Amino acid sequence: MTAYNAPTRDMRFVMNELGLLSAIQQLPGCEDTSAELVDAVLEEAGKLAGGVLAPINASGDTQGATLENGVVRTAEGFADAYRQFVDGGWNSMPFDPEYGGQGLPWLIGIAAEEMWISANNAWSLCPMLTMGAVDLLSEHGTPEQKSTYLEKLISGEWTGTMNLTEPHAGSDVGALRTRAVPEGDHYRIKGQKTFISWGEHDMTDNIVHLVLARTPDAPPGSKGISLFVVPKFLINEDGSLGQRNDLRCVSLEHKLGIKASPTCVMSFGDDEGAIGYLVGEENKGLACMFTMMNNARINVGLSGLSIAERAYQQAVEYARDRVQGAGPDGTPLPIIRYPDVRRMLLTMKSSIEAMRALVYDTATSLDQSRRADDPEARQAAQARVDLLTPVVKAWCTDLGVEIASMGIQVHGGIGYIEETGAVQHLRDSRIAPIYEGTNGIQAQDLVARKVLRDGGDAAKRYIAEVRTLCGALGECSGDTASSLRTQLAAGCDALAETTDWLLVEGSADMARALAGATPYLRLFGTVAGGAMMARATLAAQASLDAETGDPAFYNAKLASARFYAENILPQAAGLIAPVCQGHRAVLEFAEDSF
Amino acid sequence: MTAYNAPTRDMRFVMNELGLLSAIQQLPGCEDTSAELVDAVLEEAGKLAGGVLAPINASGDTQGATLENGVVRTAEGFADAYRQFVDGGWNSMPFDPEYGGQGLPWLIGIAAEEMWISANNAWSLCPMLTMGAVDLLSEHGTPEQKSTYLEKLISGEWTGTMNLTEPHAGSDVGALRTRAVPEGDHYRIKGQKTFISWGEHDMTDNIVHLVLARTPDAPPGSKGISLFVVPKFLINEDGSLGQRNDLRCVSLEHKLGIKASPTCVMSFGDDEGAIGYLVGEENKGLACMFTMMNNARINVGLSGLSIAERAYQQAVEYARDRVQGAGPDGTPLPIIRYPDVRRMLLTMKSSIEAMRALVYDTATSLDQSRRADDPEARQAAQARVDLLTPVVKAWCTDLGVEIASMGIQVHGGIGYIEETGAVQHLRDSRIAPIYEGTNGIQAQDLVARKVLRDGGDAAKRYIAEVRTLCGALGECSGDTASSLRTQLAAGCDALAETTDWLLVEGSADMARALAGATPYLRLFGTVAGGAMMARATLAAQASLDAETGDPAFYNAKLASARFYAENILPQAAGLIAPVCQGHRAVLEFAEDSF
Repeated sequence: MTAYNAPTRDMRFVMNELGLLSAIQQLPGCEDTSAELVDAVLEEAGKLAGGVLAPINASGDTQGATLENGVVRTAEGFADAYRQFVDGGWNSMPFDPEYGGQGLPWLIGIAAEEMWISANNAWSLCPMLTMGAVDLLSEHGTPEQKSTYLEKLISGEWTGTMNLTEPHAGSDVGALRTRAVPEGDHYRIKGQKTFISWGEHDMTDNIVHLVLARTPDAPPGSKGISLFVVPKFLINEDGSLGQRNDLRCVSLEHKLGIKASPTCVMSFGDDEGAIGYLVGEENKGLACMFTMMNNARINVGLSGLSIAERAYQQAVEYARDRVQGAGPDGTPLPIIRYPDVRRMLLTMKSSIEAMRALVYDTATSLDQSRRADDPEARQAAQARVDLLTPVVKAWCTDLGVEIASMGIQVHGGIGYIEETGAVQHLRDSRIAPIYEGTNGIQAQDLVARKVLRDGGDAAKRYIAEVRTLCGALGECSGDTASSLRTQLAAGCDALAETTDWLLVEGSADMARALAGATPYLRLFGTVAGGAMMARATLAAQASLDAETGDPAFYNAKLASARFYAENILPQAAGLIAPVCQGHRAVLEFAEDSF
Repeated sequence: MTAYNAPTRDMRFVMNELGLLSAIQQLPGCEDTSAELVDAVLEEAGKLAGGVLAPINASGDTQGATLENGVVRTAEGFADAYRQFVDGGWNSMPFDPEYGGQGLPWLIGIAAEEMWISANNAWSLCPMLTMGAVDLLSEHGTPEQKSTYLEKLISGEWTGTMNLTEPHAGSDVGALRTRAVPEGDHYRIKGQKTFISWGEHDMTDNIVHLVLARTPDAPPGSKGISLFVVPKFLINEDGSLGQRNDLRCVSLEHKLGIKASPTCVMSFGDDEGAIGYLVGEENKGLACMFTMMNNARINVGLSGLSIAERAYQQAVEYARDRVQGAGPDGTPLPIIRYPDVRRMLLTMKSSIEAMRALVYDTATSLDQSRRADDPEARQAAQARVDLLTPVVKAWCTDLGVEIASMGIQVHGGIGYIEETGAVQHLRDSRIAPIYEGTNGIQAQDLVARKVLRDGGDAAKRYIAEVRTLCGALGECSGDTASSLRTQLAAGCDALAETTDWLLVEGSADMARALAGATPYLRLFGTVAGGAMMARATLAAQASLDAETGDPAFYNAKLASARFYAENILPQAAGLIAPVCQGHRAVLEFAEDSF
């Protein structure tokens, strides 16, 4: 198994040199978020990720999580790693200081989270789910619920879960049937939930389940769903743990990957009914759930980037070591010298850099949407986050799978052998395009809710942003800027053309618009990645021109941007026809002929 | 687990209606290869594939092959299925009647083989490897070797293997170290080989290993390699099995997929040295091996198509059954009605149809190259096969992985669970871009040997062939022909532009040419698939215009071709820049900066 070295140099470049940190520093409460603080956080997080989490990634995959008599045992080292994580205060970074959080911006949190996922994707899901529970309770919990749960969830002493899916209700959450019957100050919950990540485990004393269910008189469909907090152990008035609630893990799924993450079938209320407490209003459960979806989707998008980074590191290490053939002078050639291997590594590297910049930039907008003084600035930032969230989720997770697969290819035959570890990344990566809303759902969300609903306002503002970058590239010296300008402008034209088409045709016939949603999202992501490469090029070229910093790093950044410009961006124009014409065959094909 | 239904309707369309069978019927010895014969073969093969091989595909994956005390046990039902296969005469279809073969054209063999692979990829590798051994011995064996081995290999009573790879010698076969020391009429072989598919098993009494090794005075590198036939049991003069040869399976690899196919580490000559017999001349072993590589590579390309077909069938079945949400009138909607799901299924379907037609067409050229009366016709057919072989191998196997992955996506969350069976297809498919020459090697072969070596002759002839099809589409009625003509012409322009660039720049600097080899191959495959869709469109439209046959089938074929035209072909132009410009960043990127 290969090591994981946190890519702190590129993380610092993105945060410090693309203007993200300076944008954060202008937000109230974030004035002291200095580059030094960021450095310190990255360095310490890198130690935990590389030294503690990464070494148990492969063994966790081999051992998996096991269920015996309702008790889920995690793989060796997982509970200990979690204790170190909690003791180091890592869980509390982005949360409200009122409940023990450190109040750091999301941007910093997401950089640390990238490391947890790269180091150990299966393990990292546990704190990621807790984060969702904290977000939900912070936003919608009663003062009493907040004081009961938030401190323990924020510290990481307890973990949280999201209980949405039922066997017949996957993407169609509104079809769920779990029942919640009022009884005094609480409800009795009965029903079965599937695909509950970290629904049961041995890493903490308590687990706080957030459960969607229907009250007896609820209207049908998605308008009749309420949200409940259902702890594994009830909480006594003094905050100590009380009786075991009526809920249990009845089986674990046998999955392709993330095997160390227990994916539970949870049964609520086999006996008297599990005790749950309403969060927010009755029948408003789905709306509550949506408040944490943006974050959760960005987190899952991040996982595409993170696993790609891990696969890339392993592929580079192998390509340096593996010798095949010899050069003209007879010296043995490591395969990293072969053009096709270099192409694969650059495809991985430049995509990762584009994704990282895009995810971090979106996290910065999220911080702005929450903290900016000016309501208009908050609103504009929120609209940008809303627009980019499905792109981050789907584009990055699709690339995550493609890059993990490419990592296997770099290895050749040995890559197909489990012990090499390259295939674990592919297996682990393959869930991310599915959960937290399939990538098809993301594309639908992008087209229907994010582009069409506001008449294209947010999309057009984003396109203008990219055009401004093209203009700036025109003022910038160097071959990369020139080549990138040409390709980014072409990509931007393609994005504008397809967006206009959607605004006209989509308003006329939503089925047509949705038939092209997936290629539209891919086109959007490709251009958005190119826009971030433009910002990277401007920053790197400026540093080179000013002769500051490390020229090797900046030259590599330019070469990576150039690779992206000349190899990845040109695919954008090829997606115009799939969006604007592809719908005909999609919609007209006779169902019986499949 | 889902069933497998052999897609005989599309197979017959490709063979009968795209002119392949009529081309075969013009070859000496093939005059009687009638459509009725083809129908009978397809029907019976479909029964064996669907009824015997497919039902043990998932259980084979779960059980895998096991090694104990040098004995490899195959999964339940595998040996019995193999017996039925041999008893049915299926192994002998394409081989020389002099040794018991049926002398059927490759085209028919490949259609049956598609079914074996779709039904059970792991199992199908065993006869596929035997086929390679038959080809090698038929071409290069002495009369005595032929009479000793061919009949048993052709009937399938014995199986064959290919022993090339050693741990340090993968793509660089020339680096191998296994030694062969002459001793009377034979050699003593000593060395270790890895990744030997079906190197040991319990399905037959004997296994015939074809082994590459070095004689004591051989020159270094690839010019010092000789080929040997090394049977597991030596053969007595009367043809009965004699003593056990000094070779054994010392371990099995733990792989991502094709788990029921034993991938062996083979040790030759741990004791006195394994007895082997020289095939062909000393030091000409690699050249011998290349004679069977075209076939083997087409077979592996076929496996990309085959596994995609299986994944598609499973995805369609699920999409018809799975209900999520309801239509405007409240009727529950199977997900096959959602535009994005339809897009996924059409991406799978149209790619599969393009691949099938391309593979079968290439097999037809292979038959022509072997059987045509006219030497010029043979040569032209051989040049076409040589050109298309790397395209078939790499393009189809890359698509196989992409389509298997898409099959998971259609399933949503349940797709990630092993018991559903969708992930087995992804796991199984992932080896095909690696073995029989990685797809990077295929791209290098395409550019350096197939396009540049003859100054672009074969490539230009192929491009002219595509242009002729564009012309024919212009004469054809209907929207599909019109749309496909536009997109195919654009794809063909892209292929011509990049080919010309390679001929100029590649001659000047091979590293540049090789840096763009992978996108060039993808572009080539995309256009070649489009060309086959053009032939399908012409045939389907003609049948519709003439009001013959089943209009539903032909309309579906047109819709599928239109989908390919408007969604897949437009990607071709996006690959011009990666070929013609992408090399700069690839070659200039500083190695230390990876």
